[in-house]
Amino acid sequence: MLYIGVDIGGMSVKAGLVDEKGKILLKDTVVTRASAPAEEIVADIAALVRSVAERGGAELSSLGGIGVGSPGSVDDAEGVIRYSCNINFVKTPFVRLLSDMLGVKNVRISNDANCAALGETMFGAGRGARNSVTVTLGTGVGTGIVADGRLLTGNRSAGAEGGHVIIKAGGEVCGCGKRGCFEAYASATALMRQTARAAERHPDSLLARLAKEQGIDGKTAFIAAKQGDKVAKRVVSTYIRYVGTGLVGFANVFYPEVFIIGGGISKEGDALILPLRRFVRRNAYGAEFNPPIDVVAATLGNDAGVIGAAALVMER
Amino acid sequence: MLYIGVDIGGMSVKAGLVDEKGKILLKDTVVTRASAPAEEIVADIAALVRSVAERGGAELSSLGGIGVGSPGSVDDAEGVIRYSCNINFVKTPFVRLLSDMLGVKNVRISNDANCAALGETMFGAGRGARNSVTVTLGTGVGTGIVADGRLLTGNRSAGAEGGHVIIKAGGEVCGCGKRGCFEAYASATALMRQTARAAERHPDSLLARLAKEQGIDGKTAFIAAKQGDKVAKRVVSTYIRYVGTGLVGFANVFYPEVFIIGGGISKEGDALILPLRRFVRRNAYGAEFNPPIDVVAATLGNDAGVIGAAALVMER
Repeated sequence: MLYIGVDIGGMSVKAGLVDEKGKILLKDTVVTRASAPAEEIVADIAALVRSVAERGGAELSSLGGIGVGSPGSVDDAEGVIRYSCNINFVKTPFVRLLSDMLGVKNVRISNDANCAALGETMFGAGRGARNSVTVTLGTGVGTGIVADGRLLTGNRSAGAEGGHVIIKAGGEVCGCGKRGCFEAYASATALMRQTARAAERHPDSLLARLAKEQGIDGKTAFIAAKQGDKVAKRVVSTYIRYVGTGLVGFANVFYPEVFIIGGGISKEGDALILPLRRFVRRNAYGAEFNPPIDVVAATLGNDAGVIGAAALVMER
Repeated sequence: MLYIGVDIGGMSVKAGLVDEKGKILLKDTVVTRASAPAEEIVADIAALVRSVAERGGAELSSLGGIGVGSPGSVDDAEGVIRYSCNINFVKTPFVRLLSDMLGVKNVRISNDANCAALGETMFGAGRGARNSVTVTLGTGVGTGIVADGRLLTGNRSAGAEGGHVIIKAGGEVCGCGKRGCFEAYASATALMRQTARAAERHPDSLLARLAKEQGIDGKTAFIAAKQGDKVAKRVVSTYIRYVGTGLVGFANVFYPEVFIIGGGISKEGDALILPLRRFVRRNAYGAEFNPPIDVVAATLGNDAGVIGAAALVMER
């Protein structure tokens, strides 16, 4: 059975013909006309899907379905994009529109981060896990949750905002205006702030010198730590403890087989993943009686969205 | 369709004949022979089920199924009780044993707290919600999670331990040995500790006088607060903020229609529930764009276990 996965982005829309093993057989893109009327954006996507199916030699009527990932607030059950910051979708009944235009019945939609999490879980770093939490450590902290093989998004798909779980009541102010959110400690932005503070307090450290010479980004502390700088090592280990604290919280609720770490910071690889795995295994509730929880880096990269969107419409 | 729900306790086992609306038509109990061989305990339960069905005029073969709630660590998917502190179950294949003894195929089991949460959600305070989190504020803090109409328990049913989500990294030591757990701030035990500290710091307060005269329990601060004592009011509002902080974390992940509050502290009623509801609605992520989340007190009392166990085997 073949499926089509669509990944809507602010600049371009990607569509891929995907087989039941999550392999992309053929892929194409179209520019997102972000400020066009919603119906026209959907029509562009319908044309893209039609072209991908045709070039892949798949009849639309023989497809297993079409899955779509969109940025913004999506009501999965209703198939509606409620709003999207950068694209002109407002209460757009996306599933109905696309389904009508193409005559395909099995059309589903979810938030793009949820799709990526589902893709990684079924066909990427999660290798078919039934339960996973994907945590994206970027400008903010995103989470995608798979529970018993299905995306968990809550009432009206308003949940899965794990970046705003409070891990330190009364702590750092978060971008959302509240205090102590996971995101305020575990995002790349938070790591940069932690790095800047440490550099300021320890002006003679290698960390401070790197910060001064090259500016600070999410890599600065990891680079200096690798060169043996004690201040940087402390920044990294504290940061990892914060990330781990959030993961342990999720572990105690979801007890997933695997945590999948994505986003810019995940590129640090073993320097991040290994201590994080140790932290989770040491601190998850009941870990001594239960199967070990794995922590791995995401592997699908930019394809996660297309593959995960296709996975939305696969039977399981 | 009729179902039988079984609620295993350390002292007695309750079984009820339950209809599809969650109404108990007939109920009976038997003493738990907690230290007998596991097979004998199961045989006692089988006899109880048989008798309840018979007296209710229901043939075993015509039942929709038998659901069971057990204390301890249960693997729902395998139907196995891994261990139970007070009853002689060790890796007991409960579902297979009971199913064989009674010749009933649709037998399921879960942890007793999960069953109570499912019962409250479908037939009690949750009035049929698809997504709920039940939080029991007792000696510890228990959680039961319903996501999209189904109990969420994680890999090997090792999850749903929301009492051990960290809400204040580096904070109070919890009974589990870790720091900052929700339970260490929101349990009745935690409230008693908070009460004792406040009484000590403010020896002239009504709170301190009550504590001295009657000893401290989970009600002390609420009683003094109702009589206008400022110190007690502060204890109560701080405690409610802690409970609320945990609920907001769950809200941001699960976005349930309803939080159901059980356990001894829930008997405070509106003095607890109303400020908690306000806190959750004010602080849940995206609450301004999404349906309001309700917070209610549990209503089924001791019947929640039997009703929820029966709900395990209902189609939905």
